Amino acid sequence: MKNEILRPSKRVYIISSAAVGGEKEKRGPIGKLFDLCGDDKFGKDTFEKSEAEMQKIAVRLALDKARLGANEIDCVFAGDLVNQCIPSAFGIGDFGIPFFGLYGACSTCAEGMIMAAVYSGSVADRCVSVTSSHYCTAERQFRYPLEYGGQRSPTSQWTVTASGAFVYSSLSDDVKRVHSDYVPEVVEVMPGRIIDRGISDSSNMGAAMAPSAADTLERFFSAGHSPDEFDLILTGDLGSEGSAILCDLLKVKEYDISRVHGDCGLMIYPEKGEDVHAGGSGCGCSASVMAADIIGKIGRGEAKNILFLATGALMNPLSVNQGLTIPGIAHLVHLKAVKKDEIN
Amino acid sequence: MKNEILRPSKRVYIISSAAVGGEKEKRGPIGKLFDLCGDDKFGKDTFEKSEAEMQKIAVRLALDKARLGANEIDCVFAGDLVNQCIPSAFGIGDFGIPFFGLYGACSTCAEGMIMAAVYSGSVADRCVSVTSSHYCTAERQFRYPLEYGGQRSPTSQWTVTASGAFVYSSLSDDVKRVHSDYVPEVVEVMPGRIIDRGISDSSNMGAAMAPSAADTLERFFSAGHSPDEFDLILTGDLGSEGSAILCDLLKVKEYDISRVHGDCGLMIYPEKGEDVHAGGSGCGCSASVMAADIIGKIGRGEAKNILFLATGALMNPLSVNQGLTIPGIAHLVHLKAVKKDEIN
Repeated sequence: MKNEILRPSKRVYIISSAAVGGEKEKRGPIGKLFDLCGDDKFGKDTFEKSEAEMQKIAVRLALDKARLGANEIDCVFAGDLVNQCIPSAFGIGDFGIPFFGLYGACSTCAEGMIMAAVYSGSVADRCVSVTSSHYCTAERQFRYPLEYGGQRSPTSQWTVTASGAFVYSSLSDDVKRVHSDYVPEVVEVMPGRIIDRGISDSSNMGAAMAPSAADTLERFFSAGHSPDEFDLILTGDLGSEGSAILCDLLKVKEYDISRVHGDCGLMIYPEKGEDVHAGGSGCGCSASVMAADIIGKIGRGEAKNILFLATGALMNPLSVNQGLTIPGIAHLVHLKAVKKDEIN
Repeated sequence: MKNEILRPSKRVYIISSAAVGGEKEKRGPIGKLFDLCGDDKFGKDTFEKSEAEMQKIAVRLALDKARLGANEIDCVFAGDLVNQCIPSAFGIGDFGIPFFGLYGACSTCAEGMIMAAVYSGSVADRCVSVTSSHYCTAERQFRYPLEYGGQRSPTSQWTVTASGAFVYSSLSDDVKRVHSDYVPEVVEVMPGRIIDRGISDSSNMGAAMAPSAADTLERFFSAGHSPDEFDLILTGDLGSEGSAILCDLLKVKEYDISRVHGDCGLMIYPEKGEDVHAGGSGCGCSASVMAADIIGKIGRGEAKNILFLATGALMNPLSVNQGLTIPGIAHLVHLKAVKKDEIN
């Protein structure tokens, strides 16, 4: 395999981000860092429309922070978990930005970051990426009707009601307008491969996705990196079950990431009291944790060298009912904090 | 809006393609040009697995023609119409190629071409794009159970059972191995915007998608092109209804494309006898017409300057039932036939 690690041709920076969440997310440890938290409905009469509205608000806020209009953006990359990705289509359509729809299950946040960085660093100057998930759209689609009140297993995760949007630019004038001392640069990206280790329990996504995260990290480290370089290796919603499996799988390969590993699914809800079992999930989970918390930490120089891996389970209820196993994928984004004064 | 037309940083060529189809497609006017036509089941016990198998065969054949192994490909871009794109995940997983999942409804073929061209022309050297659709997976998911035998309206289209795969390279050694006199170069691409003109009839996708094709073409022409430059302006499955609307919409803007316009949905089935109403559709339709027919025409120098626009309707049954209209999108790819001897 060639070119496993891809590097944008021009230097690309995340010049702004915004996170929008629901009521449960507001009560979580990073709830105060969200730009806006609503009542899960966001003024709409169906949950699908509510999810679309969250994406729209997140993109609007991120553009406002970057002091850019929608007509100054070259492309937007958007995705969600709903069949045929309708929240993205209905959420982003009004902006009139050239649109690419992505589907990578919960990995879509990192998939969009990769796309936006590659495009902003080559054929385009400025891009936006956005993803969302909503407990009420995902639950009734992937599992049971909400009214049914089905029992949840200890390894199951709670789909996060949130959206996160990011604005990327390779133009130095844009970067100079950023308010923070440090700016996150997307220095390297690595797309994931589809890994299927035979897990067929759709209530244990962590186990289905952990092997793909291990595969991507192992390929990344063997291309010349070491876990010790990083302040934080952040996986997107493996939850407690998947996180433990990931650390174990990598330990066998003699990579110890446990010292610096964090998981978005374990950061968004409090440890006790919210009944989320193995943690949060959904492509709004990692997107909102990154947009609300991590981008700010990089801006203040509290985190300087970060690996972000969003993981996805590539199944639908039909594939599970047909007896198929659950393939996983994990896309990697390597972010560095660059001192704003040093950017030309 | 800036950078409306995107140009790959390095020159990118389509070095091979392959088309796989079902029984009905074999009987069509281009049936003999398919690389392989099966019995719609492709040896599998569910239609979703059959669709995955079609993608796998198409990619395998395209790689074989390019005399490349899967481990020599940097990334694959794949998509289909099924909920959460499971045919792509299950069809492409075994190759072990870094994977990006796309969702753009029937526009996904052109979306994948854009991605593969941008990546092969910047951060990568070689990419693959593949899309598929299957009458039996789409019908039961978007409309009615197959056994129900629901009546179809005159504006409805027939989802094509087919898959098309393409191999792209920016390496001149790869291009030199191509057998044809001419090689298709991806010279320009233009991502579509989401356009919603209020159509809510899910049996009239042509009307829902035509305004987005008109929008993309109008933006493309106003950036310095004219319909007269092209041998062929090929839309991906607008069908008879949508094609007529597109030509009318552009005539109002004083662009006459009727002389050079063709539509994949009208090319894949015979005019009479197959009961497909307004024509074929699905992201296997445009992919297989391009892979089976158009790429060959370019190779023989019979078509030298082509615009390909795949159009998509960004809806699902839930959005229609919730009373939402059907937004459309159309991605554009500009291909030129380049004489092989002139490529360095």
